[in-house]
Amino acid sequence: MADPIDFYFDFSSPYGYLASTRIDAIAAHHKRDVTWRPFVLGAAFKVTGQRALTEQPMRGDYARRDFARSARLLGVPFKLPEPFPFFGLAASRACYWIEDAAQARTLAKAIYNAAFGEGRDVTPVATVAGIARGLGIEGVEQGVEKPETKAKLREATDKALARGVFGSPFFIVDGEPFWGHDRLEHVEHWLATGGW
Amino acid sequence: MADPIDFYFDFSSPYGYLASTRIDAIAAHHKRDVTWRPFVLGAAFKVTGQRALTEQPMRGDYARRDFARSARLLGVPFKLPEPFPFFGLAASRACYWIEDAAQARTLAKAIYNAAFGEGRDVTPVATVAGIARGLGIEGVEQGVEKPETKAKLREATDKALARGVFGSPFFIVDGEPFWGHDRLEHVEHWLATGGW
Repeated sequence: MADPIDFYFDFSSPYGYLASTRIDAIAAHHKRDVTWRPFVLGAAFKVTGQRALTEQPMRGDYARRDFARSARLLGVPFKLPEPFPFFGLAASRACYWIEDAAQARTLAKAIYNAAFGEGRDVTPVATVAGIARGLGIEGVEQGVEKPETKAKLREATDKALARGVFGSPFFIVDGEPFWGHDRLEHVEHWLATGGW
Repeated sequence: MADPIDFYFDFSSPYGYLASTRIDAIAAHHKRDVTWRPFVLGAAFKVTGQRALTEQPMRGDYARRDFARSARLLGVPFKLPEPFPFFGLAASRACYWIEDAAQARTLAKAIYNAAFGEGRDVTPVATVAGIARGLGIEGVEQGVEKPETKAKLREATDKALARGVFGSPFFIVDGEPFWGHDRLEHVEHWLATGGW
């Protein structure tokens, strides 16, 4: 099996949510696995000078419309949570605290679905812990507070930035970077052809 | 025939160039015409706080890669001109000075092709006038300096911003806004289905 696809995302990213509903199936179709890599998008924003789309004049209104329109086209539920943007720190830390990758991915999908499928506020640790508990995962409240958990997310974020990751979602396929949910067609074509 | 598609673009926009190679055929396939509307993207940037992608940390390197990669996928030539970004004022004014829409569109395509297909610097009026002359259009040097020509571009830009246009390319289909070359698939689907 060829190398897995790296899927970088921040839990506060609507387009990351949309990508999260598709990336595993796209990869599987090409006999690839996906490594889910939550990171702190705000750290990249400090370098690029960007901020959440919804907070930007003109772009914000369009983005809200495009989030919902893109979701409708995919046939996935979409509801922007309040407050938005939010800090996905607890969610990201929970994913790095869980050692089993498959379990962490299941939790990530459940959190994304709660945040943007149902419009729930997943900022509080208690909410993330509750979602985890629903999946049979106990101990998130304590796990996310461990210094080694916090360090894992910091290191993951540092490594993401070092690889040139500046947005969410962001994919790296055999060293080739793709930014944005709207680059999934290019990702698919890259997987099918080996590049062009 | 249904209303034409509004195609907003700045001549300094690589993704606008890519869209310019496709939009007429997409529209024609759905029995639509396209109104080509050059505008001054810098005026929108003053509102949104954005600047050219290539000038942004991290995003710039990715953008240069993505411009070329997207062009290769489409099978169209691509060469980023030097200097970049540039001011497309002369090019935009020339298009508004020409009264015949079909002729203005032909000139716009020729300028875009010179800028991004061949990597030529189309900032100077003399260069734009030379491209126009190759198409049998004389008098651009004088035409772009007329106060009424300058006023037309200002008004077109004001109207674009008033309609929520903040990027290039930008399309409006029956009142529905789409931003970016990577939204052309949505534009196509909107034309085919009447919206979703």
